Amino acid sequence: MKSVVIQEPEKLVIEERPIPQPLPGEVRLRVESAGICGSDVHIYRGHNPFAKYPRVIGHEFFGRIDAVGEGVESSRIGERVVGDPVVSCGHCYPCSVGKPNVCTSLQVIGVHRDGGFSEYITLPARNAHVVPDSIADREATMIEPFTIAANICSQMNPGPLDVALVYGAGPMGLTTIQALRGVYGVKEIIVADRLDERLAMAKESGADRIINNTDIDLASELSKLGIRPTLIVDAACHVSILPEAIGLASPAARIGIMGFSSEPCMISQQGITSKELTIYSSRLNSNRFPMVIDWMVKGKIAPEKLITHQFDYTHVINAMEIFEKDPKTCCKVLLKF
Amino acid sequence: MKSVVIQEPEKLVIEERPIPQPLPGEVRLRVESAGICGSDVHIYRGHNPFAKYPRVIGHEFFGRIDAVGEGVESSRIGERVVGDPVVSCGHCYPCSVGKPNVCTSLQVIGVHRDGGFSEYITLPARNAHVVPDSIADREATMIEPFTIAANICSQMNPGPLDVALVYGAGPMGLTTIQALRGVYGVKEIIVADRLDERLAMAKESGADRIINNTDIDLASELSKLGIRPTLIVDAACHVSILPEAIGLASPAARIGIMGFSSEPCMISQQGITSKELTIYSSRLNSNRFPMVIDWMVKGKIAPEKLITHQFDYTHVINAMEIFEKDPKTCCKVLLKF
Repeated sequence: MKSVVIQEPEKLVIEERPIPQPLPGEVRLRVESAGICGSDVHIYRGHNPFAKYPRVIGHEFFGRIDAVGEGVESSRIGERVVGDPVVSCGHCYPCSVGKPNVCTSLQVIGVHRDGGFSEYITLPARNAHVVPDSIADREATMIEPFTIAANICSQMNPGPLDVALVYGAGPMGLTTIQALRGVYGVKEIIVADRLDERLAMAKESGADRIINNTDIDLASELSKLGIRPTLIVDAACHVSILPEAIGLASPAARIGIMGFSSEPCMISQQGITSKELTIYSSRLNSNRFPMVIDWMVKGKIAPEKLITHQFDYTHVINAMEIFEKDPKTCCKVLLKF
Repeated sequence: MKSVVIQEPEKLVIEERPIPQPLPGEVRLRVESAGICGSDVHIYRGHNPFAKYPRVIGHEFFGRIDAVGEGVESSRIGERVVGDPVVSCGHCYPCSVGKPNVCTSLQVIGVHRDGGFSEYITLPARNAHVVPDSIADREATMIEPFTIAANICSQMNPGPLDVALVYGAGPMGLTTIQALRGVYGVKEIIVADRLDERLAMAKESGADRIINNTDIDLASELSKLGIRPTLIVDAACHVSILPEAIGLASPAARIGIMGFSSEPCMISQQGITSKELTIYSSRLNSNRFPMVIDWMVKGKIAPEKLITHQFDYTHVINAMEIFEKDPKTCCKVLLKF
């Protein structure tokens, strides 16, 4: 089979590899499509602290089960499924409290073990979620990106009283905006980004107000408008955003961060406690696939709005370069296998 | 009537003042006892950023209703009550989501308006909570300090799988320890403080393991012991604690802070997000009086263990100095009126 392998940072090759056999408890997928995420590019460029090389990348993938390992019902063969990349032990403290995404022996497909940019992949049977027929293949490939939004939103519990501020209108921001609008029905959504083209996509996905903060101070702008956000999501993941968010948040607000920056971040505890803010963080997803599948079946989100490009997997280098270099026109890129 | 007034920082006097008349919707209390809190001392010393002078201090007070304002049932006269110091508007965003403690027009009794170190005090009728007869006067005066623990614990949702680490064995730490042990039944409680005498009190209040971190690095010590706390409460309120807590927390842990330091605090977002930590903050209390009264009625907490001193209010300066200067033997000080 053909697999997209990062042999070492900056060295991407399409390798011929043996088709893997599913181990006990596993299924094998014939991958049909996969999505490119920023973290795939980070592994390619050598910027992911968790990645080991060589590595088949890809953690957003859709396909059909074509083989099962010992202990898995053979009736699963033929199922259309998406793969949850979070492989967990099931018994450590985080797993016990419903957070397999930070399992003490976490294995992320496409990071710690080989991923979905490949004609075939094996994964634990419980990680392969059936996709109802009403969800098209391209949409199914978008389930994983929406689980990122589902994971942070579920923790923050948005509601109709919330004035939401979303930093960043990339894929993480746009999926969050769609969830806040279509699923949680918040009162108002304000989106800040530095690209007008991305902000236009945010409007399409449900933002009420867009602010290009390239040259303006967002805190002053919101203050001028009399807006005090009660729910803030940092989907831009820059280290400077959390301190700013603490400053402009309403009392009793919740702030959600998804960034992994190791740069020092300077905050004020008085700024947090005086308003009794809560700061949530979110990594990957904790069993959010059924939730997002339900959102799609019920038409609460519109994944097609995010898909701007599609390539045959043989053009993966070109696809990744467009994803990296052209954020004005490129949002989500799918690869066909 | 006699009132304990901070006329300006460092100037405490017992003043003769007219007995206040309850406004519509208010009740008047004949105060019987009151507790000294660190924040009373901060107002005395000029270190509370919210205080305006002159101010009658005191927000932990117990007494009997002796008069009611218009619109309040006269049957309330004679009730034994404790006062919730949080006076809120009831209709702003924080009030609408059950956080009157960060109301946009918050008035804290004893900080923004005159407090309970006085023979009489008026307050909104809904802030005066009836104390069941099974709770003694001295214990009733301890209800407010326990609402601080109730407020942070309620947010953090402790449970039997939790290994809790409490920083600080002062009144905030000890009330938290008692709640974690008696109410929430966590698996293990570790307490760090710099005074052996305080740590002995922590043991009395339910700590399983005490660590004097004057000369040792707590993170290394816990690592040596193989302990990764899943629930961390900073009841010592030093700005250096949050960064340390982020480092030593288990994946999926919750951290609660109560400090108001305006000093810059340097944290790592990678440290937070990689473990999907949640950081709660807690200020005062949000409608937690009924909860603590229930805890006391059911014998889940032991407030007497914290009361080390009692004085007539005429000795208030002496009482406050002991509270400030003798943390080895002094924990909670009550004033009798």
